[in-house]
Amino acid sequence: MNYADDSLMLHTDLYQINMMETYWRDGIHKRKAVFELYFRKLPFGNGFAVFAGLERILNYIQNCRFTDSDIAYLRNEVGYKEDFLAYLKNLTFSGDIYCMEEGELVFANEPILRVEAPIAEAQLIETTLLNIVNYQTLIATKSARMKQVIGDQTAMEFGTRRAQEMDAAIWGTRAAFIGGFSATSNVRAGKIFRIPVSGTHAHALVQAYQDEYKAFKSYASTQTECVFLVDTYDTLRSGVPNAIKVAKEFGDRIRFKGIRLDSGDLAYLSKKAREMLDEAGYKDTKIIASNDLDEYTIMNLLAEGAKIDIWGIGTKLITAYDQAALGAVYKLVSFESENGVMEDTIKLSGNPEKISTPGQKRVYRIINNENNHAEGDYITLASESITQEPLKMFHPIHPYLNKVVTNYRAIELHQQVIKNGHVQIQTPELTAIQIKVKENLKFLWNEYKRTLNPEEYPVDLSKACWENKRNYIEKMKAKANQN
Amino acid sequence: MNYADDSLMLHTDLYQINMMETYWRDGIHKRKAVFELYFRKLPFGNGFAVFAGLERILNYIQNCRFTDSDIAYLRNEVGYKEDFLAYLKNLTFSGDIYCMEEGELVFANEPILRVEAPIAEAQLIETTLLNIVNYQTLIATKSARMKQVIGDQTAMEFGTRRAQEMDAAIWGTRAAFIGGFSATSNVRAGKIFRIPVSGTHAHALVQAYQDEYKAFKSYASTQTECVFLVDTYDTLRSGVPNAIKVAKEFGDRIRFKGIRLDSGDLAYLSKKAREMLDEAGYKDTKIIASNDLDEYTIMNLLAEGAKIDIWGIGTKLITAYDQAALGAVYKLVSFESENGVMEDTIKLSGNPEKISTPGQKRVYRIINNENNHAEGDYITLASESITQEPLKMFHPIHPYLNKVVTNYRAIELHQQVIKNGHVQIQTPELTAIQIKVKENLKFLWNEYKRTLNPEEYPVDLSKACWENKRNYIEKMKAKANQN
Repeated sequence: MNYADDSLMLHTDLYQINMMETYWRDGIHKRKAVFELYFRKLPFGNGFAVFAGLERILNYIQNCRFTDSDIAYLRNEVGYKEDFLAYLKNLTFSGDIYCMEEGELVFANEPILRVEAPIAEAQLIETTLLNIVNYQTLIATKSARMKQVIGDQTAMEFGTRRAQEMDAAIWGTRAAFIGGFSATSNVRAGKIFRIPVSGTHAHALVQAYQDEYKAFKSYASTQTECVFLVDTYDTLRSGVPNAIKVAKEFGDRIRFKGIRLDSGDLAYLSKKAREMLDEAGYKDTKIIASNDLDEYTIMNLLAEGAKIDIWGIGTKLITAYDQAALGAVYKLVSFESENGVMEDTIKLSGNPEKISTPGQKRVYRIINNENNHAEGDYITLASESITQEPLKMFHPIHPYLNKVVTNYRAIELHQQVIKNGHVQIQTPELTAIQIKVKENLKFLWNEYKRTLNPEEYPVDLSKACWENKRNYIEKMKAKANQN
Repeated sequence: MNYADDSLMLHTDLYQINMMETYWRDGIHKRKAVFELYFRKLPFGNGFAVFAGLERILNYIQNCRFTDSDIAYLRNEVGYKEDFLAYLKNLTFSGDIYCMEEGELVFANEPILRVEAPIAEAQLIETTLLNIVNYQTLIATKSARMKQVIGDQTAMEFGTRRAQEMDAAIWGTRAAFIGGFSATSNVRAGKIFRIPVSGTHAHALVQAYQDEYKAFKSYASTQTECVFLVDTYDTLRSGVPNAIKVAKEFGDRIRFKGIRLDSGDLAYLSKKAREMLDEAGYKDTKIIASNDLDEYTIMNLLAEGAKIDIWGIGTKLITAYDQAALGAVYKLVSFESENGVMEDTIKLSGNPEKISTPGQKRVYRIINNENNHAEGDYITLASESITQEPLKMFHPIHPYLNKVVTNYRAIELHQQVIKNGHVQIQTPELTAIQIKVKENLKFLWNEYKRTLNPEEYPVDLSKACWENKRNYIEKMKAKANQN
């Protein structure tokens, strides 16, 4: 292993570099390409997704340069020739990127991000952009979905030990914070992202003292804010009574913040523990629950009247356990022709959902001024202007589903974040992004927010965009059939 | 974000540092603790797992030191006091680690790794060790499981864009290689780990030229080894004919290595494409398939007689999609008492599988000398010696399941990898680890290797180990009931 001279520039698929070589040798590598990044299906059967990943993308783009050892590897191990390597050696990203803000609500089949760059450069960054957006958006969405169930109660991210390696642990907890979580157990994420950190003690502490009462006492002697983990031996017979006993002995010297339940029937145990705490006069002491929780367990525990105040969530959040990948793709929608004119492009498929929508586009959120709720998203070609009122919206696959909207405002969702390779925006504070998600969700009708079988939020194409797509389908099908 | 002065030392749960503080203030932080790392259930319903993660662990332990900015963060943001911070500032890992080799087959409830160290240090590293082992072992296992179905055909890892952030992409592809995959698309992983890299071109190339034939021609002009992606417009009417046409035109100037199918009915398309290639005289040109493949799809495609030679696998491998986390835990099994004697410890649970097995242990693989197959694994207390022949093995939860083994050899599975904080071993070449997995699998009866409902491989406790556990259960239950 040679991990010391690692750089992210090679964090790409080999075929991107192969294609760069083809474009370069053909002399078309500098022609402008427009790629759009989007996913085709919302994860978890959820009614919305929450975009995350932009901060990491900006960081990556700014440091986008092949190192000497990258070039040496491409020369000696992969076998690229010197002339092409000389081109790579001096390469930086010189294009433009337009993107939604982190924390924006996003739906299937609408561009989250658009790259306008020399085609060779646009290809090179595809893999990393997808790697970042797919994971971070997945977790921000899972987090926001869980928060829909948890409501105003506190949710904490505890998943590092089950995360898919280290980057997932820290970027995942950042995404969880964006979606509405309040804290993390990962100290490194706390340092890097200034997310509040939280934690109590493990079973090992109790085992080390071989005696729960002694262990709690030692913990209380050294920590002023105490949450005791009460299930090492027996929650109700030993754990909760020992926690109360120690709290009484220490009185004002500690703050008896809570107990944590980590196994057993959380509904039953929390109710019993609540009674015991209340009887002992600890009405403000919180009950924290953990143990493989997800939105379904939590919804059931709440329905059962579990007396849980704080939810510690690990595996099911940090790995998005029930759907461990978001399938975002990155498609070429427009490319500069020989004579310098931009020409739209399409990718066909036997599967109608997989046909790309040609042309550089804009995405608008249509907000009804009367009720301040979103009517849907509206995608136009970049060349169109959205001034006509009333607005006719229709479903791009089933056009008979349509409606006319009047008295609306159209909010464009992309902003330019990279210009000629340079970052154009100040990244907002993480807390501001979290608040933005909350604000954004207020624009959505509850029908789109419920956990089970939400209504499908409309993402419609303008008439011009839709007709352009239909024309390209016909044109390319005819061409394919000539063979 | 302040990512520049990042270090992995804080890649831990806050509660570890809280517990360290308690131990330190109590003056017991240097007492020797023995922790064992193991999982309770094999993933994917598989009959075995493949251990991976050691290389990354050794790297982490060697660089285990708090930076100034780590200390500053713990002081200013978390609020630890100066005396404790002074202790942390000079801390390195000074203990011992015993571990299986990477590529070792491992089963539920047997220690993969054992840490013997001052308790404060042993707690600090828990989270990272679990984070590494859980993911890398999960993916090495998934890969080996897929290879059981794929057999001698070639499997390639294509998952970076769907991986759970960047570390997962590169360490996941390393784990996939250990499990039997031949190549990766990730160039960075190729550079760091010297895994062969592989890749063709994307749909974007075909779209850029607006014409599949032209695109293939350009690709062939610039690449000597050609694999054409044939499904951008229409696989059989356009893609395969264009690939053949270009191959004929270029003749000896290129090596027409293969075509790649990435959508549609892979069984049907591969058979038709095979016929077309054979008729055109390209009998050695391979057919590569990709598109959300996993072991179930592959098994069905093979059963259907699909003419696929090479499998490109992404999402389902790199995220371990059907079970995205391995639940390995790290339990204190023995701790030095006040008077310097090691005392065993236990964690109870209402759930019998979750009760830990007290005591420092050794793990042996029992190989039958007559047929050279494994009879099972045998766990003893470290103080026992395994000299008795015949060996009586019995199931630790259902002791009536037992057998007597004669004429066997007992191979101890742990070696010391860290001594007083220093690495003791040379990490083997990745290829050697891959070969080792293949060799290891030969010792397993096929019953344990089948994909669906494999037999349960025996992992038995010695009588002394089992009785020790029973005694501790009684003892700690009695104590808990005193309250």
